[in-house]
Amino acid sequence: MYIHQMKLRVRYAETDRMGYVYYGNYAEYLEVARVEMLRSLGISYREMEEQGVMLPVRELRITYHKPAFYDDEISVRTELRAMPGVRIVFTYALFNAGGLLLSEAETTLVFIDVRSGKPRSAPTAIIDRLSPYFG
Amino acid sequence: MYIHQMKLRVRYAETDRMGYVYYGNYAEYLEVARVEMLRSLGISYREMEEQGVMLPVRELRITYHKPAFYDDEISVRTELRAMPGVRIVFTYALFNAGGLLLSEAETTLVFIDVRSGKPRSAPTAIIDRLSPYFG
Amino acid sequence: MYIHQMKLRVRYAETDRMGYVYYGNYAEYLEVARVEMLRSLGISYREMEEQGVMLPVRELRITYHKPAFYDDEISVRTELRAMPGVRIVFTYALFNAGGLLLSEAETTLVFIDVRSGKPRSAPTAIIDRLSPYFG
Amino acid sequence: MYIHQMKLRVRYAETDRMGYVYYGNYAEYLEVARVEMLRSLGISYREMEEQGVMLPVRELRITYHKPAFYDDEISVRTELRAMPGVRIVFTYALFNAGGLLLSEAETTLVFIDVRSGKPRSAPTAIIDRLSPYFG
Repeated sequence: MYIHQMKLRVRYAETDRMGYVYYGNYAEYLEVARVEMLRSLGISYREMEEQGVMLPVRELRITYHKPAFYDDEISVRTELRAMPGVRIVFTYALFNAGGLLLSEAETTLVFIDVRSGKPRSAPTAIIDRLSPYFG
Repeated sequence: MYIHQMKLRVRYAETDRMGYVYYGNYAEYLEVARVEMLRSLGISYREMEEQGVMLPVRELRITYHKPAFYDDEISVRTELRAMPGVRIVFTYALFNAGGLLLSEAETTLVFIDVRSGKPRSAPTAIIDRLSPYFG
Repeated sequence: MYIHQMKLRVRYAETDRMGYVYYGNYAEYLEVARVEMLRSLGISYREMEEQGVMLPVRELRITYHKPAFYDDEISVRTELRAMPGVRIVFTYALFNAGGLLLSEAETTLVFIDVRSGKPRSAPTAIIDRLSPYFG
Repeated sequence: MYIHQMKLRVRYAETDRMGYVYYGNYAEYLEVARVEMLRSLGISYREMEEQGVMLPVRELRITYHKPAFYDDEISVRTELRAMPGVRIVFTYALFNAGGLLLSEAETTLVFIDVRSGKPRSAPTAIIDRLSPYFG
């Protein structure tokens, strides 16, 4: 298992007239969290894409427990619980500064070869970086 | 069961550098679809909120089958499969102009009394409008 | 001069905790308005881009007179006041359903040849469609 | 004059199918930059709003010189060139990691009393914090 933690601050643009972070904007937080997790492993998602491997999202699930508010500093804990194959599954828990669990999420992404447009297995660079964390 | 159909066109802003509609933007499409479904029943979500009932999203699930592209005209079919209680569950299927299934989604929302901040059952206006379609 | 009118409805996602449409979201409304103006002339922005001509925004100016609110139906009047050359300037006025002027804007965009990355003059198709409106 | 510098990283969600940061998303960058500038002065925009002073945007101007790309680390230099009265004017310059000037912007915001809905002068807290920087 590989765990990564990061923080981000809620932008005014991300709130809605209820005063909450709009439910669709969490997808963006999850994107930032998983990209930063990969960066913490020495993997640039941008470079991976430039080398011909895309990683579109296949499934998204979010449960919203408590709202997040403007200017809140949100902690995102991202977990990889299994080695990626053709798919990679990220699991997320979001907390506010008081440690309250705001939401939980899971995204499943698929490695795609840009040229063929077909699914492919995870690049060796990712496997190599992750294998020390998976017995 | 109550079914509603509507169309919307993909904005440039909603695409990403893959050329696809960004996965988080579908939440906005689902919002528009369920609000238009309620409008087709004679219910204004805006008025409901102004009368003290909010409807925040509790759960979101989306499966992305095929990408949507810039300027695509997307048809959203929204279904209510059960009478709402404290919760209301919308089920969605999104198709492109060629009839290809792009994605499927489900959102669970909770009726909240604005003053107390507590869950409450669906307003009578909604129950009255929906009951002809259920049993 | 060529004038185009269209309507769009404010999405919940587009509001902020002030209850207003977030100031940055107007850029998206302007995008939709100018693309629909081109469509009204028989020009598909999507096809133009696929044929190798991009039209990035070079300048944006907006003055916000009155806020727009959730679920408002906004009318956008878009004007082309001069034939495009290398640049094309769109002028916009946004009104709510009561006819109140909400905001005024202007965007300057530049025709770019995708292959060379260099500015170029407006495609003949656009010039041909527009010339009847410009004595 | 008061100058503030900050960095932010381009999110995938913020790009469009041209591969550029969508022109409307810069408004969000400017929001983050001016809020962080205020924070650097010891002023919380959130608290100010909770104390009954809103700061809606009255005018936005952006000139886009060069595109920003996915994962770019953008530096935003924000300047206050004059003491605020009823209005406050922020001037911005955005640079990429190579020091290239990407865009320049200016926003004019108006202090509004939430209860009356009327313009008012800048809160004393802001005046006090800024006056050392303005002869």
